[in-house]
Amino acid sequence: MNWWHMDETHDPALTSWVPDADGHADFPIQNLPFGVFSPADGRPRIGVAIGPMILDLAACAQAGLLPSATAGLCTAHTLNGLMAAPAQARVDLRRRLSQLLSQPGERASLESWLYPADGCRLHLPATIGDYSDFYVGIHHANNVGRQFRPDNPLLPNYRYVPIGYHGRASSIRPSGEPLVRPAGQRKPPEATEPVFGPTARLDYELELGVWIGEGNPLGTPIPIDRAGAHVAGMCLLNDWSARDLQAWEYQPLGPFLAKNFHSTISPWVITREALAPFRIAQPPRPADDPAPLPYLLDPDDQAHGALAIMLEVLLTSAAMREAGMAPLRLSRGPASNMYWTVGQIVTHHASNGCNLNPGDLLGTGTISAATRDGFGSLMELSVGGKEPVALPTGETRTFLEDGDEITLRASAAADGFVPIGFGECRARVLPAP
Amino acid sequence: MNWWHMDETHDPALTSWVPDADGHADFPIQNLPFGVFSPADGRPRIGVAIGPMILDLAACAQAGLLPSATAGLCTAHTLNGLMAAPAQARVDLRRRLSQLLSQPGERASLESWLYPADGCRLHLPATIGDYSDFYVGIHHANNVGRQFRPDNPLLPNYRYVPIGYHGRASSIRPSGEPLVRPAGQRKPPEATEPVFGPTARLDYELELGVWIGEGNPLGTPIPIDRAGAHVAGMCLLNDWSARDLQAWEYQPLGPFLAKNFHSTISPWVITREALAPFRIAQPPRPADDPAPLPYLLDPDDQAHGALAIMLEVLLTSAAMREAGMAPLRLSRGPASNMYWTVGQIVTHHASNGCNLNPGDLLGTGTISAATRDGFGSLMELSVGGKEPVALPTGETRTFLEDGDEITLRASAAADGFVPIGFGECRARVLPAP
Repeated sequence: MNWWHMDETHDPALTSWVPDADGHADFPIQNLPFGVFSPADGRPRIGVAIGPMILDLAACAQAGLLPSATAGLCTAHTLNGLMAAPAQARVDLRRRLSQLLSQPGERASLESWLYPADGCRLHLPATIGDYSDFYVGIHHANNVGRQFRPDNPLLPNYRYVPIGYHGRASSIRPSGEPLVRPAGQRKPPEATEPVFGPTARLDYELELGVWIGEGNPLGTPIPIDRAGAHVAGMCLLNDWSARDLQAWEYQPLGPFLAKNFHSTISPWVITREALAPFRIAQPPRPADDPAPLPYLLDPDDQAHGALAIMLEVLLTSAAMREAGMAPLRLSRGPASNMYWTVGQIVTHHASNGCNLNPGDLLGTGTISAATRDGFGSLMELSVGGKEPVALPTGETRTFLEDGDEITLRASAAADGFVPIGFGECRARVLPAP
Repeated sequence: MNWWHMDETHDPALTSWVPDADGHADFPIQNLPFGVFSPADGRPRIGVAIGPMILDLAACAQAGLLPSATAGLCTAHTLNGLMAAPAQARVDLRRRLSQLLSQPGERASLESWLYPADGCRLHLPATIGDYSDFYVGIHHANNVGRQFRPDNPLLPNYRYVPIGYHGRASSIRPSGEPLVRPAGQRKPPEATEPVFGPTARLDYELELGVWIGEGNPLGTPIPIDRAGAHVAGMCLLNDWSARDLQAWEYQPLGPFLAKNFHSTISPWVITREALAPFRIAQPPRPADDPAPLPYLLDPDDQAHGALAIMLEVLLTSAAMREAGMAPLRLSRGPASNMYWTVGQIVTHHASNGCNLNPGDLLGTGTISAATRDGFGSLMELSVGGKEPVALPTGETRTFLEDGDEITLRASAAADGFVPIGFGECRARVLPAP
């Protein structure tokens, strides 16, 4: 069972009896992402998003409507069990859900288990054992590197190593939960000593998240031609960053407190089954770049390992909100700006025998385009704080102010298929205490 | 309830009816560390080490012998619940165990729940949510820095920031479990391109581990005068490192695959109650060094925040083992070579609001002495591979060979108190697959 599994659930002619599901920007019946939600008066449970509604999978399982191999896993309070399930079992569950939500005859039995998403609380979909973040957005690496090393922005290892590092699992939060502006040490360029206080350079980072499904035992690498089978799905990830803390602390062991105060993810797991129609060829490397080392090179991964996903970042300041203005789009660009594929980062991560577990989360790193309209952070858009971004209120931003809200969105599209979206990854900045 | 809690459990005159407990190098009755063990024929359960034996706390709890506030927590399969318990509840449990194991009248009822440690398997004591590693061994930082920057070994942030980074929780293993030599990318100095294969520079790192007890909510820092209350106990930590992978991958985001293939910890949690008699003053900083910033500075932490613990590293090669030779001591030095206290690293970690949880593990970073006899890694002892270390077989080592076994040991001592030890942190290197 490979990532490429295509079946009747991807049929563009498929429609749902759920009102407003057909044509829904994020969650038409061809998507069927999994998540964990609470209705207004209820406890957390597993659900699937369909249009503006959420179907309670625990109720479906208890009513005997789901395949026996996964019904028990659907009554859990996290998706870890489903993520660990064999791929065939997840495919069978998806096909069953596609039937239930498309066949009008099922409406009467399911309708009472549908909840309007607007009235529900979305939780983290899984218990995240370990969270690792990569750096595969080559334009981001170039843009950031250029601010430090104008003539030589990319370090020598970049084109060989899918650079990554470990992040903090405990402070990952679902969309909607506000973040508190963090304090920390920063050293103003003209100062002789650092000061401690709230960050003055709070930034967002536009990333994709990768949910690990099947794990690998410690000491056992994952071959590149099997990497896709270890991916359960994807989400959006905002890797909030305090740039002044980062600049002062990061040598020699990398970012720490500049990143681990809060990370926001979109709460729906867009499954690799749902993403199958949107795989595309990895863009060819520039002629001067080395080929990936053999352990990272697989013809199928090169031919189909990238994803046709468009990403965008929206900002709403407090003043914009009060004036009833629409969010300002700060950037928009394709996920094909990733220098390494999802398969390559999974294989690299396990290449030393490091064990990945179901529910682990990998971040891609900031995905920027080559041009300013696709830059994935304010550090890039404002060129390190030197070129303010104009807001429709007349305000400007170099970095984020209290009350600012950042929303990440993504959608996958391919000729002949119904586009699907990731839902929102959104959070507002609260002042330092 | 602060770290300084001293009571009758620390009385040097206290003795145990358990054979060979009195005078035991690691686990006299004044220690009473907690762990999770399986008898030869049984399932994992919580126990306390006493001399060469382990007392089954689940059995004691079920028999109604333990205080009601913690009895239920003692029947769990990990220590996370006990670590999260209020400090007073843990103190009460310790006092009860001290009574049970010292009063000869208790022997008849407890004897059947004592297991020889030699016949038991020790597990990880807790489910580790997040693992962070620091860099507080200033001589280690100097030694390593000197290999790259002879004139300026310490970076400008070192004396202000307790430098740390996130590590991998999934690959932490208890003492005794062998590690597999990892593969990875390394770039020989004379080569134009990196190669992929087993590391040629496998090293150990001598560290202390800090177990977090009570956590802090996201967004809420831990003041330095409360840091001790968030520490449940300590252990030994071997942060196995592949130096050739590390040199090639670590810029700009820090070590990743060079470290996350395996970390070994000693399985007994030496509680902060047990360590109370061994607190000492933090050594004064050199006159030219800046004072810690106010958020890291507390008079009590400066006066009593260091620990009188001696650390040592032992090596046994396969040839030494076959010849029946004793392990070779590679180094020995005091934990007071930490530039920052345990309280300072806890407070710094949470200073941006990052939430720590019960069962999280913090590593101190390699603790080296100023002189060669106390260097905590082979990279330091062999000066980056240039000066081989002689073994009693006539073999030499610059880095570790397959079959080598590294054992870390530690003991705390203070005038007027019975010394206590940490038990072994030991693992053997298996060849790459």
